Amino acid sequence: SVSSVDAQTSHNVAELPGLISVSTFVPAFTSSDIQEVTRTALQSGFTFAGILPSSAVGAGITDAHSLAAANEEAQGSAFTDYSFSVAASESNAHQLPSLASLSSALYLPFNQFSNNKVSAISAHFATWPEAKPIVTDAKKTDLASMLLLASLHSRKIHVTEVVSRDDLALISMAKAKKLQVTCDVSVYSLFLSQEDYPQLDFLPTKDDQKALWEGLDEIDCFSVGCIPTLVAQALGEDSSAGVGIADSLPLLFSAVEDGRLTIEDIIAKFHDAPIKIFDLVDQDSAVEVDLDRFVVSLKSKAKGFSPFKNKKAAVERVHLNGQTVCLEGEVTGNEASGKQDTVRFQHHSHIISTPLNQVTDMPQSPATRRLS
Amino acid sequence: SVSSVDAQTSHNVAELPGLISVSTFVPAFTSSDIQEVTRTALQSGFTFAGILPSSAVGAGITDAHSLAAANEEAQGSAFTDYSFSVAASESNAHQLPSLASLSSALYLPFNQFSNNKVSAISAHFATWPEAKPIVTDAKKTDLASMLLLASLHSRKIHVTEVVSRDDLALISMAKAKKLQVTCDVSVYSLFLSQEDYPQLDFLPTKDDQKALWEGLDEIDCFSVGCIPTLVAQALGEDSSAGVGIADSLPLLFSAVEDGRLTIEDIIAKFHDAPIKIFDLVDQDSAVEVDLDRFVVSLKSKAKGFSPFKNKKAAVERVHLNGQTVCLEGEVTGNEASGKQDTVRFQHHSHIISTPLNQVTDMPQSPATRRLS
Ligand SMILES: [Zn+2]
Ligand SMILES: [Zn+2]
Ligand SMILES: [Zn+2]
Ligand SMILES: [Zn+2]
Ligand SMILES: [Zn+2]
Ligand SMILES: [Zn+2]
Ligand SMILES: [Zn+2]
Ligand SMILES: [Zn+2]
Repeated sequence: SVSSVDAQTSHNVAELPGLISVSTFVPAFTSSDIQEVTRTALQSGFTFAGILPSSAVGAGITDAHSLAAANEEAQGSAFTDYSFSVAASESNAHQLPSLASLSSALYLPFNQFSNNKVSAISAHFATWPEAKPIVTDAKKTDLASMLLLASLHSRKIHVTEVVSRDDLALISMAKAKKLQVTCDVSVYSLFLSQEDYPQLDFLPTKDDQKALWEGLDEIDCFSVGCIPTLVAQALGEDSSAGVGIADSLPLLFSAVEDGRLTIEDIIAKFHDAPIKIFDLVDQDSAVEVDLDRFVVSLKSKAKGFSPFKNKKAAVERVHLNGQTVCLEGEVTGNEASGKQDTVRFQHHSHIISTPLNQVTDMPQSPATRRLS
Repeated sequence: SVSSVDAQTSHNVAELPGLISVSTFVPAFTSSDIQEVTRTALQSGFTFAGILPSSAVGAGITDAHSLAAANEEAQGSAFTDYSFSVAASESNAHQLPSLASLSSALYLPFNQFSNNKVSAISAHFATWPEAKPIVTDAKKTDLASMLLLASLHSRKIHVTEVVSRDDLALISMAKAKKLQVTCDVSVYSLFLSQEDYPQLDFLPTKDDQKALWEGLDEIDCFSVGCIPTLVAQALGEDSSAGVGIADSLPLLFSAVEDGRLTIEDIIAKFHDAPIKIFDLVDQDSAVEVDLDRFVVSLKSKAKGFSPFKNKKAAVERVHLNGQTVCLEGEVTGNEASGKQDTVRFQHHSHIISTPLNQVTDMPQSPATRRLS
């Protein structure tokens, strides 16, 4: 109960804006999985989930049908605000313009292109609307190709789940040469390495991990990403909805305690930068975290596997769109009220109280839109 | 005999400057192979051979020892002027500065880098002297990486033996975006395709070949390259020294006859552009070609396999460094007098007659250096 917590000698609470999860893995695009993942996200301090277009089962989101189906499942099921992105395939470049308005970003899963990646990817750069973000998980040589193509097409590109020293060095070099590239690193990559699990070659090596910490300034965003799910699968653990999400704040706050990170870094990389890079409408949101409190002491905990024990930094309260939506880990609204970010006019915010018909003639300034 | 030729009704002779073979394959870096290849080159209208650092046997030129050995074998054996380039390996980046002065270019054989190509190649871009050319045979995704790295390091790069529509499109796009990239296409790729030899997947498809012809303006240089040797090997034919060299002018002049090419194109892509791109000292050279005469009627013919029959455009005379060095296919000097291009002061030219001690204080203008 709350009173038992308040009886502690120190009640060291930080308030953050709601976190933005840019690469959220959902096992299947069903209302129950979307519900489970976004509930975990909300309990863990996230108020927005950018959902990856690839699932563990069936096809990804690559056309109008799969995108509409996923959006339909999400409506009334999501506990956080959300958006879907569309995965590029070798054959869907021509469909992209019609999909863009219903999705938030184009995802380029580079390894899934077989023969001539360069021309296939070029076609996607040419047809995807210029104002919309492009995301890729490309690594090594493929990453270099992708950066060249983005540069030749004068497009911004976001690299998600950077793992290696070399990829981060390439991105840094590209930034130094004014290429429009941004990146995120999965929180797991900062705290797990092949030293912990030698058999998991998708994790950074200890040297890679060192480079990620040393290159924190070059890392625009933190993410949850697919890596936690991959870890659970590789270890034969339950990889159902939402693995890794609940570990994010406890891990990052442990680094704050160790002096390797500041709270400002967390806010910059898990809120400010994602909103800017993905051009999201900022939410009315706030998260209260008790830094000294063990997560396990919360009334309701996120389910599922975690390789980390004795986690501190418990999310005691989440405020979203004018109300407290999560208290002591328990979702307090009686229905899932998350809204899709891509359709802007559906969003409400108590910051702008002007009726909609008066707003239409008035350009929204970035300042009013981005207030936290 | 010469008189039998002169008895023909038409004696349609073109005079060209000596051709430059930028990517010359030599089976082994021995005096006999170098002799055989450069003799074939001279007979075929070439007065300069940029020798590829990879041979069919043994290791390539990757360090001071192998470079010195190759240079030693070439001295007194080469019938044309020549230069060697150095092949990048995963471990020789730190040696490059000391090798640069004795070689003409750095060759980046992209497929020979195993693990992290991006960082290995980056190291080479960082250590190779900025004034010296860099050449690569990278294709598809690897080509895109290479172009990005060249761009990030603000380096010029030359792509040799472009074969596909997509690679040429990528290069064209890079040129349009002001990247410092140039390229060559093997003459064989313009005249042989997978339609002729379905089993030879290193040849362009018919559609690729169409793109090469349509994109001739984007192709800076012609080359002989490795493709003729690969064709001979794949067909089980003799792939000894110099395959394909003697076919170059006959093939190109057949295209001139068909109206697909001009003599100016041949000079631009087989002489002017190579000299400019590889920063070569222009030679005193001239080649007389009888356009209507069958090559087979020459007194002495280049040996070796060719898939092409009934070739016209016979090289009747080659003039190099003040003398006729080849007449009717017969080398007329009594020794191989080809000189290495990389050591500039060794070159003689009758264009500059000023004694050396007066020249040293006088900067050579590009105009005096580049006179044909
Ligand atoms: Zn508390
Ligand atoms: Zn509020
Ligand atoms: Zn929203
Ligand atoms: Zn905010
Ligand atoms: Zn004649
Ligand atoms: Zn002369
Ligand atoms: Zn010379
Ligand atoms: Zn010349």
